[in-house]
Amino acid sequence: MAMNPQKRATLKEVARLAGVSYQTVSKVLNGQVQLPEVTEARIWEAVRALNYTPNHTARSLRSRRSHTIAYCWAPTATGQANPILDELLQSMVQAAEQQGYYLLCFPNLPDPNRQREAYRELIDSGRVDGFILSSVEYEDPRILYLMERRFPFVAFGRSNPEYQFPSIDIDGGMGMLKVVRHLVERGHRRIAALTWPPESRVGANRISGFLQGLIEADIPPVPEWMERGEGVPSFGYQATLRLLKLPEAMRPTAIVAFNDAMALGAVRAAQQLGYRVGSDIAVTGFDDTPIARYTLPPLTSVRQPIWEVGERLVNRLIALLDHPEISSPYCELIEPELIIRASSTGEETPLDQDHPYLYP
Amino acid sequence: MAMNPQKRATLKEVARLAGVSYQTVSKVLNGQVQLPEVTEARIWEAVRALNYTPNHTARSLRSRRSHTIAYCWAPTATGQANPILDELLQSMVQAAEQQGYYLLCFPNLPDPNRQREAYRELIDSGRVDGFILSSVEYEDPRILYLMERRFPFVAFGRSNPEYQFPSIDIDGGMGMLKVVRHLVERGHRRIAALTWPPESRVGANRISGFLQGLIEADIPPVPEWMERGEGVPSFGYQATLRLLKLPEAMRPTAIVAFNDAMALGAVRAAQQLGYRVGSDIAVTGFDDTPIARYTLPPLTSVRQPIWEVGERLVNRLIALLDHPEISSPYCELIEPELIIRASSTGEETPLDQDHPYLYP
Repeated sequence: MAMNPQKRATLKEVARLAGVSYQTVSKVLNGQVQLPEVTEARIWEAVRALNYTPNHTARSLRSRRSHTIAYCWAPTATGQANPILDELLQSMVQAAEQQGYYLLCFPNLPDPNRQREAYRELIDSGRVDGFILSSVEYEDPRILYLMERRFPFVAFGRSNPEYQFPSIDIDGGMGMLKVVRHLVERGHRRIAALTWPPESRVGANRISGFLQGLIEADIPPVPEWMERGEGVPSFGYQATLRLLKLPEAMRPTAIVAFNDAMALGAVRAAQQLGYRVGSDIAVTGFDDTPIARYTLPPLTSVRQPIWEVGERLVNRLIALLDHPEISSPYCELIEPELIIRASSTGEETPLDQDHPYLYP
Repeated sequence: MAMNPQKRATLKEVARLAGVSYQTVSKVLNGQVQLPEVTEARIWEAVRALNYTPNHTARSLRSRRSHTIAYCWAPTATGQANPILDELLQSMVQAAEQQGYYLLCFPNLPDPNRQREAYRELIDSGRVDGFILSSVEYEDPRILYLMERRFPFVAFGRSNPEYQFPSIDIDGGMGMLKVVRHLVERGHRRIAALTWPPESRVGANRISGFLQGLIEADIPPVPEWMERGEGVPSFGYQATLRLLKLPEAMRPTAIVAFNDAMALGAVRAAQQLGYRVGSDIAVTGFDDTPIARYTLPPLTSVRQPIWEVGERLVNRLIALLDHPEISSPYCELIEPELIIRASSTGEETPLDQDHPYLYP
């Protein structure tokens, strides 16, 4: 085949030389299919003969794609950490790279006009192919804007039930249901909750499971045992002091925190009042952050398979880009796992087996 | 002034109408300068009269900038966390946004050819204006490539002393010196170190300060007390078991871990062998990760002002882009702070005052 040395070999030329279809070459180069050894060898020979190199710029021009995914979330403040979103970002950066995409990161802007302008500019300039959103709330203006523009996106988390858009979420309600069942099994009937204000979407999902657990066990909810505040240790600490200073007949025997940060505050407050956490009072968290297994006692918590969520978000968005004809405005719900440790059982937990790299 | 409604007003037109220089308008709009009230009012009037809106796309075209900064680091593995780099990323995303820049994130690729190709493509396609690198090591191929290409970048961390490039680093040696001085003040003379293998650049910086501390106190280093391994809890745990099973005359009284993760493993091992950490044996960490103040006992550690580092990295890179004539291939070293808690003193630490949001 006559080759112009100035011109890059195309995938089609490779396919012609190897005697297979363009799609087949593409799939083999991307590791998406395994063919008989001789066929694959013929393809790789053609790649070498034509000195073909897959080129992202060329690919962008061909498909008019930027191969860039915008990712938007509410960053944490100075000195604070959100291990769940941090791990999500790590997994998405790696999943995107494996598919030849970059992640363009920017914060969720508090000013709605500025935010709208940022989205408009990113779309109109062709800088990004699609969006991944996290920190999703009810009436989320980002979701409304992207739905209106019919621009591809996938959200980590649900919003208003009437909005139809592609999303992936951890089933927080199911996680809470598992926590309450575990506590009920161990004999608890006075179960308090440390949660967020009513407008929190994540909070509402988790509360529904919490209440379902009480209903299953015929336990009437007690308003005084539902503490609402910011999801930080200081709130967990203050709320627990209040709960444990209630008259004895009104005092809960278990405290279900809606994240690990609040649980840590709860543990500290209980210990300060002289309670042995795990035996005198049960405390549970949610997130199974790396911190959970280092507290004394180690913390019973709900593990979110967040690494997997990050990979799924990226792959689902790329599937939307590759097959715009397929609309899939549904929410993929992933079930979390209850990790039982000493803070709800009082039993000395052996060195954690679940994260083998942490301890021998 | 005759205005073409199809054409956006330019900054120069605003400047002409306001009777000031182009640079002055730019600085006022970017909040970089304060002028007499009447002058500022005149500029804002002109902005409104011409309906001028700063537009990133237009700005990109004018200055041939993408207003995108590439950020490259070694992401953590599944289920692991690196709170320092996580917080760095949060602060950089926010600092970049405040300056009208996006952060394009991608992982440090293990394959050097693929990595070189990624850098080449990002530069040649004009997708990014500059790079910020972290997870910098000796002989770092990314640094060599960017120096060769004379493309703007700033690194978080140093590399070979003979490479001249703009960087910002925490003075890890100074942090370790502070740790050793603190322990020596409290009477310790048998001080062990849990550190990384010799090829670790960060490890080498910290060891120099550790050894300087011993020399200052006339303490000869003991090879058996220098344990080297991966910076994870399991290594800290195993190494501490070895150290505390040495014959009594050869046993250290203080263990200086080169990060908090190893310190957590060390605390657990010591407690398992029946030591009261803080009084029977001192353990210190490095990083002051959010976990440090929740362990029992709370962990003495070295705090890296990482939020500030992120802001400085972004601002320094943008300064390089704005003033390419100024070359500044020096390393800005930032001094970290020693946070003393019960793990090295045995004294009950009151609820932490240093992070007031954590506890009341």
